Amino acid sequence: MEGEVAKVCPESYAMKGGEGPHSCAQNSASQRSSIEAAKNFLQSAIASKFDLRTICASSTNPICIADLGCSTGPNTFIAVQNVIEAIQIQCPSQQNHNQATPEILVFFNDQVSNDFNTLFQKLPPNRNYFAVGLPGSFYGRLFPRQSLHVVHSSAALSWLSELPKELTDTSSGACNKGKIFYTNAPKEVFDAYERRFKMDLEAFLQARAQELVDNGILACLILVADDLIDFSVDMYAGKDYELLGSCLMDMAKLGLISEEKVDTFNIPTFFPHVKDLMKIFEANKDFSIEQSELIDNKGFLAPNIESHVSRLRAVLEVLIEKHFGDGIVDELFDRFTEKVRAYPEVLDALKFKFHVLFVVLKRKVVIKA
Amino acid sequence: MEGEVAKVCPESYAMKGGEGPHSCAQNSASQRSSIEAAKNFLQSAIASKFDLRTICASSTNPICIADLGCSTGPNTFIAVQNVIEAIQIQCPSQQNHNQATPEILVFFNDQVSNDFNTLFQKLPPNRNYFAVGLPGSFYGRLFPRQSLHVVHSSAALSWLSELPKELTDTSSGACNKGKIFYTNAPKEVFDAYERRFKMDLEAFLQARAQELVDNGILACLILVADDLIDFSVDMYAGKDYELLGSCLMDMAKLGLISEEKVDTFNIPTFFPHVKDLMKIFEANKDFSIEQSELIDNKGFLAPNIESHVSRLRAVLEVLIEKHFGDGIVDELFDRFTEKVRAYPEVLDALKFKFHVLFVVLKRKVVIKA
Repeated sequence: MEGEVAKVCPESYAMKGGEGPHSCAQNSASQRSSIEAAKNFLQSAIASKFDLRTICASSTNPICIADLGCSTGPNTFIAVQNVIEAIQIQCPSQQNHNQATPEILVFFNDQVSNDFNTLFQKLPPNRNYFAVGLPGSFYGRLFPRQSLHVVHSSAALSWLSELPKELTDTSSGACNKGKIFYTNAPKEVFDAYERRFKMDLEAFLQARAQELVDNGILACLILVADDLIDFSVDMYAGKDYELLGSCLMDMAKLGLISEEKVDTFNIPTFFPHVKDLMKIFEANKDFSIEQSELIDNKGFLAPNIESHVSRLRAVLEVLIEKHFGDGIVDELFDRFTEKVRAYPEVLDALKFKFHVLFVVLKRKVVIKA
Repeated sequence: MEGEVAKVCPESYAMKGGEGPHSCAQNSASQRSSIEAAKNFLQSAIASKFDLRTICASSTNPICIADLGCSTGPNTFIAVQNVIEAIQIQCPSQQNHNQATPEILVFFNDQVSNDFNTLFQKLPPNRNYFAVGLPGSFYGRLFPRQSLHVVHSSAALSWLSELPKELTDTSSGACNKGKIFYTNAPKEVFDAYERRFKMDLEAFLQARAQELVDNGILACLILVADDLIDFSVDMYAGKDYELLGSCLMDMAKLGLISEEKVDTFNIPTFFPHVKDLMKIFEANKDFSIEQSELIDNKGFLAPNIESHVSRLRAVLEVLIEKHFGDGIVDELFDRFTEKVRAYPEVLDALKFKFHVLFVVLKRKVVIKA
C-alpha cells in the first residue's frame, strides 16, 4: 500500500465546460451519432463476449463500468446506458434467481480540469446505477486492480498525454514552426506525433489490463484515418487544423499575437491509420481482439460550416486560451469561419478520409503462479 | 436491476465552493481541529474494531472508504488519511504476504451542488489511494450494497434532509414566524426539528447498513448539545442563529427584504441532545455501538468574532442567497458582526454548551437464510 498510485498527467486537456453556446455539452451531437451507430455493435459484443455469470462470481459485488473521457455529458450517459442495457439483457438468462440482481456502479472519468460539477448536475435523475466521477489521466492507473468489468471510451484516445517535445525544439527536424498540426508538415513531425500516440495507447492498455477483471471488456470508439492517406501531402481531417493554424499566423503577422506563441502551439491530437492502430492492438499480450468495425461517419459530420466551426471551438477553446491567453478566441474563430467558407472542400475531405473504428478487446485470463 | 437506485434529496445544501475568503475551503479550521482531536480515537477504533483479514477476504478487492459530507477539502483529506493510516498499521501484521497488498478506493461524497471541481483540483497529488467523487444526499442509498469497508462523516449529520413542512404552515403550532431557528421558539418548533432529525438519522443508518460489508465500520463526528440545555429558554450554540434571524427581521423592517421571506426561512440544522442521539443508535438493529466519546470542542471555537462570523457565512451563504436572492449577504453579515460584538457571550455559550460526539458503529453480521 506504499507509494503513489495516482499519477498526474503532465499536460491536461479538457473540453469547454458549462452549458454555454461554445460548451462541449452543447456541441456533442457529432459524437452522439457515432455512439448511436455503435450501439448495436456494442450491445451484440457485450451479449456475446461478456459472460455475466463467469465474471461476477458473487452477486454481492457490483458490476463496475467506466467511461473514460466522459466530458460533461450527455453522450457519456447514452453510452453507459447502452452498456447497461446489454448487460441487463443477460440478467434473466444468466442470473441465479436465488441471488440478488447485481447492482451497477459507473465511474465517469475525465481530466481533473473537466467540469464535473456540470456532469453531476446532468446525471439522469432516474438512473438505475450508482454514479461517481473520477478525475485523472487515463494514460496512468485510475482504478484499483481487477475492479472493472466493462470499460468504454469514445473519441478520447485521439488526445495525446502530452505533446512531443521535439515539436518546439528548434534544433530538431520535428520542429513545427509556423504550423499547429502534422498535416503538410515535415515527416519528422508526423513521426513524433505517431510515436507519442503509440506510447500513450500502450500505456492506456497496460493500465486497463491491470484494472479489468479477467474476461473484462474494453470497448473503444477511435477516430482513424483512411489507410490510403499520406498525411504529408493529402487533404484530410487535419486540414481544418491547418486552416486554423494559418489564421493564427495571419493574426501573428498583424501583431495580434506573437509568432513565437504560434510556433510553440501544436494541437495534441492524433488520428492513426487503421492498419497501424490494429498492429498496436495485435501486439498487445494482455488483450484479445474480439471485434473491430469501421463505423459510418456520416452522422459525425456537421450539417454546415457554422456548426462545424462551433464544434471545433468547443473542443479547442480551453487549450487555445491556456496557450495564448484570453481575448483571441472570438476573432480567431471568426477568421476560421471565413477560411472554411473559402475552402468548403475541407468538410468533404472529412467525409471521405476519416472513419470511426469500433474495437472490442477482452482481458485475457491471468494465469496465477 | 430494475428501478431507481439513485434517490434525489428534495432540498440540497452545500457549503460555499471555490477558494474565496467566504468559501468553505478557507473557513474549515474549526472542523479540522475536531478531526485532529478525533484522530487518536479513530485510529485506535480502527485498530481494535476493524479486522482487515476478516473483512477483506480477497486482496484483489480494494478496501473502500467513504467520507460523507466531504465539502471541498482540506478536512476530508485529513480525515481520510487518518483512516488509511489506521488501516495500514494492520497491513504487516494481518496481511498474508503471498498476496498483494490491498489497494484503497476513496469515495468523496457531498450534495450535487457541492463544488467537486475544487475538491478534485485539491486532491493530494501524492496520495496512496484512488479517489472518486460521488454526488447525492447521504439520507438515501449512494453505494452498491455491501461495497464499503469504512464510512466516515464529520459534522455533516447536523444538516436535515429537508425542513419540516410545519415550520412555514401558518395553521400549525410549529409555525416559526419571525424566527429562523428553534432556540427560544415554541416547543412545537423544536419538536418538528427533532422528529425530522430522528427520521433522517434512521434513514442514514438504514442506507449505510445496506452499503457496508459485515463488520464494516461507521465513524461519525456529530455536533451535539449538552443534555442540560433546555432549548426553549437557554442560551446555546443556536443563539447565534437567533441573532442572525433578528438581523434579517431588522432588514425586513427597513424594507430591504420581505418579512414573509424571513417567516419562510429556517436553518435546516439540528444539534441533538447527547442522550437522545445515543437512544437512536441504541435502538438500531443493524449496528453495534463500539465506542462513543465526547471530544473537547476547544479547537472548534473561533479565536475572535470576525473569524466566527466568517465561518458561519461560509456555511450559510449559499442557503441564504438561494432563499433571499443575491445582494443581501454582505449587509446581513455586517449587521450580524455588530450584534455579536454587542453580545459576545454568544461565543461563551458555544464553548460550554456544545460538544462533539465521536461515535463508532460496527455493521452487525447479516445472517443469511
